[in-house]
Formats: sequence, structure tokens, C-alpha cells
Amino acid sequence: MDVQLEKLKFDSNGLIPAIVQDLKTREVLMMAWMNREALDRTIETGKTHFYSRSRGKQWLKGESSGHVQHVKSIRTDCDADVLLVQVEQVGAACHDGYYSCFYREHQPQGEWKIVGRKVFDPKEVYKGG
Amino acid sequence: MDVQLEKLKFDSNGLIPAIVQDLKTREVLMMAWMNREALDRTIETGKTHFYSRSRGKQWLKGESSGHVQHVKSIRTDCDADVLLVQVEQVGAACHDGYYSCFYREHQPQGEWKIVGRKVFDPKEVYKGG
Repeated sequence: MDVQLEKLKFDSNGLIPAIVQDLKTREVLMMAWMNREALDRTIETGKTHFYSRSRGKQWLKGESSGHVQHVKSIRTDCDADVLLVQVEQVGAACHDGYYSCFYREHQPQGEWKIVGRKVFDPKEVYKGG
Repeated sequence: MDVQLEKLKFDSNGLIPAIVQDLKTREVLMMAWMNREALDRTIETGKTHFYSRSRGKQWLKGESSGHVQHVKSIRTDCDADVLLVQVEQVGAACHDGYYSCFYREHQPQGEWKIVGRKVFDPKEVYKGG
């Protein structure tokens, strides 16, 4: 039993937000939700697992694309209700083909501007899937 | 009216998670929640504002400590349901005195280890408050 995990505060749905950061570039790659099982699996396997609220099930990041995230550290914040997971990203984090999911930036006027770098073509990676 | 903000997906409580990252060091400093009003105020003033779920009201980050965050960019992710705010941090982000709120790291065995750097003594900064 991992007593450290007993201190974490999962919300009323049993979930905790997990921010994923690239260890090398220090880019924030994505945020997703973990339940206790996804966190256990992440620690066990060294690859990030999350809980999909829309699909109602656990998933391994990269299960269809191969773009897994190798976990290098797991931190928590002062309230113990958010996780920060530092990873080595294989491929890219975003299913839209960008390295980071945060690829759009707010502008003083106008529209969200694409500022992220595109790494792959989603049509190629997810074909047939 | 800022049409960009119409595209954001606030949750059923009218909230969106906002990850705050230090622009210079690229450390992830904290995560807190914004409602639409807190986001509008953040954009207007150039200082981060959040919505406190426990206190049921908006707050300016640094209102008691003076440790405000000057906003340099606001990004959103592929699903438009999370924000990434890059800031210049005055003082430190964490009310426990650490530069980042994510100052504890999970260990293979044992207990959460303090890995963050302490910047101030909370007893001094919040005295009388």
C-alpha cells in the first residue's frame, strides 16, 4: 500500500486533475483526469493512464497513436488536489498533431492564434482507427 | 465582446481549470479555477484572478501577499476546456512559501519528498491576515 496516495484529495467523482509537462522542453503538454486506478496504473507501468469522463473508462495515453508518455516524476500541490506529471513524450501529446495540446493563444483582438508546432498529420496516425 | 471566449467550454459549475506557468523558468506554478468573470478580469487587468470554490467568490492572486502574477499569454487546449496562463510571478506562487505549489514529489517508497525551493516565510507574509 502506498501511503502517499492516501493523502491525495480526489473530487466527488473520484477524480484528480493531472497536468502533464515535458521534462526536457518544460512545455505544458496537456491536462487530463485520473481516478485512483489510473494513478496506480501510471505508477506501476511508468506510462500515463487517465480516466475519460466522456467514455467512462480508463485509457493509456498513446494506446491508439503509440504516443505514450514515460513518467519521470509525479508531484502534487499544496492542497494535494492536483498532480503534475513530468514525462518524456513519444511523438506528440495532442491528437490534433501538435506537440502540446495548448497550441492556441488568445489575442488582444480577433481570434485564437495557432502558436504550437505541428508534429504529425492526424489523418496518417489515426487512419483506420 | 471577445468572440474568442465564446469558444471556451466552462463546466457545469461555470468553471474552467487554469494552469499557471512561469514564463521565465517554465515551472508549473499552480492550478486554480476561473469563472467567466475571473477570466474577463484577468484579461482586463493583466493580473490573474480566480474563482474560489470554497469561498464562493472571485479573488485576485496576491491580494493579501502582494504576490501577483503578470499575465504574458493565455492559451487553451484542443478541447478548449483548460487554460494555460503564462506569467511573471512576483514573490512566489504558493501560500506555503514555495515558489511553485508543486513542491512535493512522489517517491517509489516512503513519503512525499519536498523538492521545491522555499522563497518566503508564510508567518511573515501573512501576519495579522
